[in-house]
Amino acid sequence: MNGIAEASFTTPDMTAVFAPEAHVRQMLRFEAALARAEAQAGIIPSEAAERIVECCRLERFDVKALLSEAANAGTLAIPLVGNLMEQVGEQYGRYVHWGATSQDATDTALVLQMRDGLDLLIADLLRLCATCATLAERHRHTVMAGRTLLQQAVPITFGLKAARWLGLTERQARELRARRRGYLALQFGGAAGTLAVLGTAGVHVARQLGQELQLTTPEIPWHAERDRMATVAASLGITAGAMAKIAGDVVLLAQTEVGEVLEGAAPGKGGSSAMPNKRNPTDAVASVTASRLAVGIVPVVLSAMVQEHERAAGSWQAEVVAMPDLFRYTAGAVSRLRDALSALEINEERMRDNLNLSGGALMAESLMVALAPHMGRPAAQRIVKEVTESAIAQQRTLHTEALADPRIGAVLGEAKLNKALEAARYLGSTDIFIDRALAQYAVLLAE
Amino acid sequence: MNGIAEASFTTPDMTAVFAPEAHVRQMLRFEAALARAEAQAGIIPSEAAERIVECCRLERFDVKALLSEAANAGTLAIPLVGNLMEQVGEQYGRYVHWGATSQDATDTALVLQMRDGLDLLIADLLRLCATCATLAERHRHTVMAGRTLLQQAVPITFGLKAARWLGLTERQARELRARRRGYLALQFGGAAGTLAVLGTAGVHVARQLGQELQLTTPEIPWHAERDRMATVAASLGITAGAMAKIAGDVVLLAQTEVGEVLEGAAPGKGGSSAMPNKRNPTDAVASVTASRLAVGIVPVVLSAMVQEHERAAGSWQAEVVAMPDLFRYTAGAVSRLRDALSALEINEERMRDNLNLSGGALMAESLMVALAPHMGRPAAQRIVKEVTESAIAQQRTLHTEALADPRIGAVLGEAKLNKALEAARYLGSTDIFIDRALAQYAVLLAE
Amino acid sequence: MNGIAEASFTTPDMTAVFAPEAHVRQMLRFEAALARAEAQAGIIPSEAAERIVECCRLERFDVKALLSEAANAGTLAIPLVGNLMEQVGEQYGRYVHWGATSQDATDTALVLQMRDGLDLLIADLLRLCATCATLAERHRHTVMAGRTLLQQAVPITFGLKAARWLGLTERQARELRARRRGYLALQFGGAAGTLAVLGTAGVHVARQLGQELQLTTPEIPWHAERDRMATVAASLGITAGAMAKIAGDVVLLAQTEVGEVLEGAAPGKGGSSAMPNKRNPTDAVASVTASRLAVGIVPVVLSAMVQEHERAAGSWQAEVVAMPDLFRYTAGAVSRLRDALSALEINEERMRDNLNLSGGALMAESLMVALAPHMGRPAAQRIVKEVTESAIAQQRTLHTEALADPRIGAVLGEAKLNKALEAARYLGSTDIFIDRALAQYAVLLAE
Amino acid sequence: MNGIAEASFTTPDMTAVFAPEAHVRQMLRFEAALARAEAQAGIIPSEAAERIVECCRLERFDVKALLSEAANAGTLAIPLVGNLMEQVGEQYGRYVHWGATSQDATDTALVLQMRDGLDLLIADLLRLCATCATLAERHRHTVMAGRTLLQQAVPITFGLKAARWLGLTERQARELRARRRGYLALQFGGAAGTLAVLGTAGVHVARQLGQELQLTTPEIPWHAERDRMATVAASLGITAGAMAKIAGDVVLLAQTEVGEVLEGAAPGKGGSSAMPNKRNPTDAVASVTASRLAVGIVPVVLSAMVQEHERAAGSWQAEVVAMPDLFRYTAGAVSRLRDALSALEINEERMRDNLNLSGGALMAESLMVALAPHMGRPAAQRIVKEVTESAIAQQRTLHTEALADPRIGAVLGEAKLNKALEAARYLGSTDIFIDRALAQYAVLLAE
Repeated sequence: MNGIAEASFTTPDMTAVFAPEAHVRQMLRFEAALARAEAQAGIIPSEAAERIVECCRLERFDVKALLSEAANAGTLAIPLVGNLMEQVGEQYGRYVHWGATSQDATDTALVLQMRDGLDLLIADLLRLCATCATLAERHRHTVMAGRTLLQQAVPITFGLKAARWLGLTERQARELRARRRGYLALQFGGAAGTLAVLGTAGVHVARQLGQELQLTTPEIPWHAERDRMATVAASLGITAGAMAKIAGDVVLLAQTEVGEVLEGAAPGKGGSSAMPNKRNPTDAVASVTASRLAVGIVPVVLSAMVQEHERAAGSWQAEVVAMPDLFRYTAGAVSRLRDALSALEINEERMRDNLNLSGGALMAESLMVALAPHMGRPAAQRIVKEVTESAIAQQRTLHTEALADPRIGAVLGEAKLNKALEAARYLGSTDIFIDRALAQYAVLLAE
Repeated sequence: MNGIAEASFTTPDMTAVFAPEAHVRQMLRFEAALARAEAQAGIIPSEAAERIVECCRLERFDVKALLSEAANAGTLAIPLVGNLMEQVGEQYGRYVHWGATSQDATDTALVLQMRDGLDLLIADLLRLCATCATLAERHRHTVMAGRTLLQQAVPITFGLKAARWLGLTERQARELRARRRGYLALQFGGAAGTLAVLGTAGVHVARQLGQELQLTTPEIPWHAERDRMATVAASLGITAGAMAKIAGDVVLLAQTEVGEVLEGAAPGKGGSSAMPNKRNPTDAVASVTASRLAVGIVPVVLSAMVQEHERAAGSWQAEVVAMPDLFRYTAGAVSRLRDALSALEINEERMRDNLNLSGGALMAESLMVALAPHMGRPAAQRIVKEVTESAIAQQRTLHTEALADPRIGAVLGEAKLNKALEAARYLGSTDIFIDRALAQYAVLLAE
Repeated sequence: MNGIAEASFTTPDMTAVFAPEAHVRQMLRFEAALARAEAQAGIIPSEAAERIVECCRLERFDVKALLSEAANAGTLAIPLVGNLMEQVGEQYGRYVHWGATSQDATDTALVLQMRDGLDLLIADLLRLCATCATLAERHRHTVMAGRTLLQQAVPITFGLKAARWLGLTERQARELRARRRGYLALQFGGAAGTLAVLGTAGVHVARQLGQELQLTTPEIPWHAERDRMATVAASLGITAGAMAKIAGDVVLLAQTEVGEVLEGAAPGKGGSSAMPNKRNPTDAVASVTASRLAVGIVPVVLSAMVQEHERAAGSWQAEVVAMPDLFRYTAGAVSRLRDALSALEINEERMRDNLNLSGGALMAESLMVALAPHMGRPAAQRIVKEVTESAIAQQRTLHTEALADPRIGAVLGEAKLNKALEAARYLGSTDIFIDRALAQYAVLLAE
Repeated sequence: MNGIAEASFTTPDMTAVFAPEAHVRQMLRFEAALARAEAQAGIIPSEAAERIVECCRLERFDVKALLSEAANAGTLAIPLVGNLMEQVGEQYGRYVHWGATSQDATDTALVLQMRDGLDLLIADLLRLCATCATLAERHRHTVMAGRTLLQQAVPITFGLKAARWLGLTERQARELRARRRGYLALQFGGAAGTLAVLGTAGVHVARQLGQELQLTTPEIPWHAERDRMATVAASLGITAGAMAKIAGDVVLLAQTEVGEVLEGAAPGKGGSSAMPNKRNPTDAVASVTASRLAVGIVPVVLSAMVQEHERAAGSWQAEVVAMPDLFRYTAGAVSRLRDALSALEINEERMRDNLNLSGGALMAESLMVALAPHMGRPAAQRIVKEVTESAIAQQRTLHTEALADPRIGAVLGEAKLNKALEAARYLGSTDIFIDRALAQYAVLLAE
C-alpha cells in the first residue's frame, strides 16, 4: 500500500488503525497490561508496574527511529522494549517485558489492531446492509431482466438483486463478528512458549493479562500455529470478494448498452472531459480494485502458516505487513462499494425497455406454464419453443407471434395471453426471498 | 490432479467421493429428491416421481459419454437431464428437473460431495488428534531444545510440541465440523433464482427438497453469491496449511544434524540405494507437497467469487474442478502426516545431547532467574550475560564457567547451581499446557 | 484435474503428453540415453548399455504398480529404477542409472514432457493467430463502439479489436518459443549435484546426455534452483491470462444487450431447453474457466522455488503435479477460445445500431476536432460539451442538437457536419495498427 | 506496504522510485514529451509546447491534493491534467494532453518508474553476484556436507553452494536486463486506442514520443493487453523467489545444530537480551519475508490480465498499486540477502565436523566406487551397504567398520581406504561447475 492506494483503496479510519504509530501504541498497551498483571501476581513490585504504565505512552517514543532500528533487530519489539527500559530507568527498567518474548508483544499488538479493524469493518458492512435493504424495499417491484451467463434469462426485480446483495453482505458482517468473538487471542508464551521465567505462575499471569486486554486467553501460546490469523485473513478475503461481486454487477449494469444504473454524479467524479457522454462507475471500479488487492493477500497469509518449530523465521514477520494491508484494502472495497450504492441512480425505464430487447423471449417459460394446464406440458413446451424461435428468427415479438398462433389462441384469449407475457406476473418467490433477506438483516441488527 | 497425485497426495476414499461418477450420482440424487418433493407438493404426478426416482440410478448412465457432451453444453447437468428425460420416457419425461436449472443440480451435487468429503476429513483429523495426544502424553517429560528462528532458545518437552500439534489439529476438526453444519446449503432457484416456474409453491418445494437431502435450505438461492463455498475452501486450505506446519517440523527434526526423529522404516520407504545412510522423511515430505497443492487452490476459489448477475460465466464452473482437487490434496496432507506421526521414531538421547550443543547456553535464562532473589534482577542479568558470553567465546560449558565465577558461587552452592542448569526444571507451564490441550481434545471427542 | 476438467478444460493431446505413462516413458528415455552416453564415455560396458536401452520400453512396466510404490518411496524414479534393474538382469542391472539420482530422472522427464507440451501449445497458438488474423482482415472496416470502463467511448472497428487479440496471441507464441529454446535444460547431477560417482568424467557424460536428448546442458545442475521451471510456468500463466482477456471480450460482446457476437451454433451446444432465447457462449466460458485454473497454479510453482540445500523436500515434488495441470489447463484455455473465435457469428448490424445508443454522443470528440480549425480549440470544446450534454438530457441525438446550434451551423454546413459525425471517418490510426499486427504475425510465421 | 515494510523490507532508493511524487513526476514527463512531439509534428503550436514543458515541473503541484481528487476521478491523471491545464493558462491550456487518454499518462509513467526500478534491481543483483562470486572462489575447497531432503548425502564444497547461488542470481540479472530491453513500451492510444484525435498523424507522434522517452513504441496501444506488465511482474516474482531460496539456505545453515554460518554481528542486530546464546539471522529472515510478500503480488497482476474491451475497469488500476509494491519487496529481498551474505561468517571447522556426524556414512558411495574396480560393482555395492548399515547400527564410524572388514582389507590397504573415505577427494565435477558459474558471471559483466 502506498499513497495512491491510501487515497483511493482504503479509508482514513482503517489507515489510522494500522499506522506504525498504532502498532507501537498497542505494543505499549501490552507492556503496560503485562506489568499490571505481574504486579497483581506479586511477580514484580507494584511501584515498578506503576512506573512502567506511566512510561507506556506513545508520545514518549520516536516511532521513526524505532522502525529503522527494527530492520536490524528483526522486530520492532526489540528496540521498543529497550527504549522503554531506558525510559523506565535504572531501578525498575529490568521489570519491563518480564517473562515475555518479542513475538508476544508483536502478535498481541497486531491482534489488538485487528480488533479495532474488525469493529470498523463490521460497522461499515452494517451501513452497507442498510443501503442494500433500502434498495431491496424500494425496488421490490421494479421488474428487470435476470441474467445468466450474461444472457437475459427470465425476469427478476431489482429488489431481489439488492436482497441477494444484502444477504451476501449480512453474512459477511455475521462472519466478521464471529471472528472477532472467537479468533482474537492473547499471545503470551515467553521465549519458547513455556513461560519458564514465570515458573508456575505463568498461566495465572496470562489469564490476568488476557482480562486486562479483553482478549481470549488461549490454552497454549500460538507463536507457530497461525490458524486463527489465517482464518481472520480468509474471512476478510471473502468479504472483499463479496464486495467485488456486487461492485462487478454495478459496473455491468452501468454499461452503455445496459444503462440500468448510473453512479451518482458529483463534481470531479468519473467524468471524462473529452467524452461528455461517459460517466464512469468510479466507486464500483475502485471497490473491485481494492478487492483484487485484498484477495491477493490471503494466500500470503495461508502460505505463511508453515512456521518452523516454536517460533518461526520469516513467516509471522510477513503477517505484520500483510494483515494491515488486507484490512486496509478490504475496508476500501466495502466503503467504495457503499459510496457506489448509496448514490446509485436506478433507471427503471431502461430496465423495462431491456426486458423487451429480445422481443419478450424471456417470457417464453411463462407462456409455457400458462399453456400447460390446457394441453399438457409436452405440447406446451413444443409449441412455445416453435413460436419463440420463429419470433427471434423473424425479429417479431413473442407477443405478436403467440397471438397469431391458433393453437395458443384456442386456449388463451388475448387477455390471458397478455397476463402470461407480463414480466411482473412471473416472479415466483421473489417477494418471499426479499422478505427473508430483510428478516435476516433484522435479526443481525437485533443481535 | 493426475495419476501421480492420486497415488501420493490424496486418499482412495477421497478420490472416490470426488470421482466424476460420484458427481453424477449426486446429481441423480438431486433429481430424484426434487421429483419426490414436487410430487408431495402436488406439482407433478406421483407416478412421474416414482418413474423418475426409478431411473435416477448411476448404472443407467454412461458417464464418459456425458462428460464429453458436457464440454459442448457447458455443464454436465444438461446432457444428464436430457438423458434422464429419455430414460424416463415419453409420458413422464417432461416432469424431470421441473423448475430447476442446471446449476441447481450441479451446485447441490457438489455440496453433497463436499459433505461426504468433510466427513472423511473430520474422521482423519480425529485420528491424527489421537496420534498427537499419544505423543503428548508419552513424551510429556521428554526434554528437548525449544527453537526460535531455528536457533535453540530454552528447553521444552517433546510432549509440549505434540500438544501444540494436537491443539492445531483439534481446532481444524472443530472448524470443519462447523463448516459441515452451517455452510452446506441446498441450491434451488430455477433459471434466475426466482423459482418462477413453481409459482408461489417454490419455497415450499425448496424446504421439502432440503429435508430430503438433509441440507440447509437457504433464505435465497445463492447461484452467484459464493461466500459459503469460499468459506469451506478457506477452511480446507487452513487445514492443509496446519498439516504443513507439523510436517515441516518433522522434516526439520529429522535432519541429520538434529536427528531427533526418524520416520518409521518400511520396505521400499524413503531409502536411497546409493546412500544407505539416508532415511528420507517421505511421508512428511508428501504431506508438505499435498499441502502446497491444496493451499494453491484457495485463491482460485476466492477469485471466483466475482460472479456476474444472477448466474455467472466461468466462475462456478471453475469451482467444480477446484473444490474436488482441494478436498483431495487436503486429504493427502492429513493422511500422509498421520502416516508420518503414527510410526515416528523419537530419539530421546539425541534430544538430550542437542541440549548441550551450545555448552548449555540455553539455560542462561534459568540461571538468571535463580540468581535474582539473591542479588536483584539487574545484577543477575548482568552476571549471567557475562558468564554466558565468556563460555561461548572460550568454548566452555555454562556450567564450568558459572562454577568458576565467585559472584555466583557466593550465593548458589554447586547443588543449587546444578538445579538451576537442569533443563527439566526450567519448563514453566509446560505441563499445564499439555493438560489443557488434552482436555480440549477430550471435549472435542465428547461433542 | 479430474474427469470433468479432462473433458472440458484441456485437449486430448495435452492429456496424453502429461499422462503418468508418458512420464514413465520419458524417464525410461532418460535412463536409456544415460546408458548410451556412459557407454560412449567408456564408463559402462556397451553391452550393458545395449541391454538397458532394450529394456527401457514402456510396455515392459506396470505403471499403476509403480505409482503405488512411488507413494512410499517418495518418488516414482525409485521403484522405476529398481524395476528396470531387475529387468536388465543380474549381469548389467548394476549399470542402470549409474551416477544419477532420482531427481535427475524425474526432472529431465518432466522437462521432456514440457517440450512436447510447449510444441502443442505453440501450434495451437499459431492456429489461434490465424483465426484472429482472418477476423482482423475481414472486419477491418466493421465499425463498432470502442468501450472503456465498459462505457462506450469512441468508434473502433472489429478488425482492430481482432488485431489486438492477434498481437496478444502472437506475443505468447513468441514467448513460448523463446522458453522452449532457452529454458529446457537437462538435469544431471547425481546425489548432491557433484556427479561424484563419475569422477572427472561427469561433465563429459552430461554433455553427451544433453545431446542425446536434445536438451541444453546447463552449467551446473539445477536441482534446487528452479528459476527455469518458474519462468516456463509464468509464461504459461500469462498465456492463459491472455486467453481469458479475449474470451472475456467474447462473453461481454455476446450479452443480450450488446448482441454483437454469438458463438456458432451446434447441436447440444450452449442451449437451454427452458429458455430458447438463450445461446450461451460456452466455448468462451470454458476458456475463461480453464484460464482461471491455469493462472491459479503459477503461484504454487513460484512459491515452490524456496528449495532447501542441494535437493529439497516437498517443493520439486509439487512441480511434478502442478506443471502438468498448468499445461493442461492452458491448452484448454487456448483451444476452447479458438473454438469460440473460429465459429464466431459477427452481427455487424447490431454493432452499427449500438453506435447510436447514446444518440451518437460518442462522436462528440470528432465534432470538436472538426470545429476547432474554425473557432479554436477552447471554443470548440466548450460548444461541443454544451450540445452533447443538452442532447443527452433531452434524449435527442447529437446530430439533431448540433444541426440546431447556430454556432455550429455558422462554420459547418450539414454535409460537413454529417461527415464529422460519421463513425467510419473517425478511426485515426486504426488501419495502420491492423496492418502492423498482421505484419508482426507474418514475421512470426516466417521465423 | 506500510512504515514497517518500508523500514525493513525494501530499500530507500526503491521507495523513492515508486513514491507518489515520482509517479506524478513521470506523468509530467509524459505530458511534456507529448507536447514536444506534437509541436514537432505541427499539431500544436511550439509556444504551447514550450509553455507546457515549463509547467511540467513537480514542484508546481500539490501531490497530496491530487491524490485525494484521484479517488473521486478514478485516476490520478484526471486531476493532474486538469491542474496542468490551469497552470499552463487560458491560451495554451487546451493543448495539454492533446489526443491522449488518462491511461496513456498513467501507464507510461508506471513504465518509466519500472525502468528506474529495474535499473536499481539489476545493479543490486550484480552486487549480490559479486558477493557470491567471492564466496565461490574463497571457499572453492571448503568441504561440507551436501544435503538432500535435509539429510546429509555426499560431500560438496561451500564454494559450489555459492556458485549455484551465483548462477541463480546471475540468471535473474540477465532476465531483468532482457525485460528492461524488451518489455517496457510506451502507452499512447487516446480514448479507445485509435489515436483518432490526431487523424493520420497518430503513429508519427507516437514514434516521436517513444523516442523522447526512450521507450519502445509498440505496434498497437496495449491498454487492455497486459502481457508485458505481467511478464515483468513474473520476472520480479521469480527473482524474489530466487532470493528466498538462498536466504533459506542461510537460515538452515545457521541453525544451532548445523552452525556452519552465522550472520555478521553488529550492535542491535539479531540479538536477544534474554538469550545471549542466540544470534538470529535477521537479514536472511528479512529477505525471506520480503520475498514472500513479493511473490504474493504476482498472481494479482496475472489475474488482472483479464481486462474488458479497449480499456478496463479495475484491473489496470490494481497494477498501479501492485507493481510498486512488487518492486519494493523484491528490492528488499535482494538487498537484505546481500547484507546477509556480504558479512557472513563461515565456520569451516563446523562444516568439517558435521561431515563426521553420521560416522562418515556419507562417504559410502565413494568407498563403493573405490572397491568396484577390484570386485565388480555388484559386490562392491553389497559389501558397502553391509558395512555402512553395521556402522550406523553400532554407532561406529564407517572407517572403523571398513578397516575391520577383511573383504575390503583384501583389496584396499589402509592408505587407499583413507583416500576413499576422504571427502575432499570425492567431489566429482565440483571444480568445473564453480569455474563455469564464474565464467558465466564474467560474461554477464562484460555484456
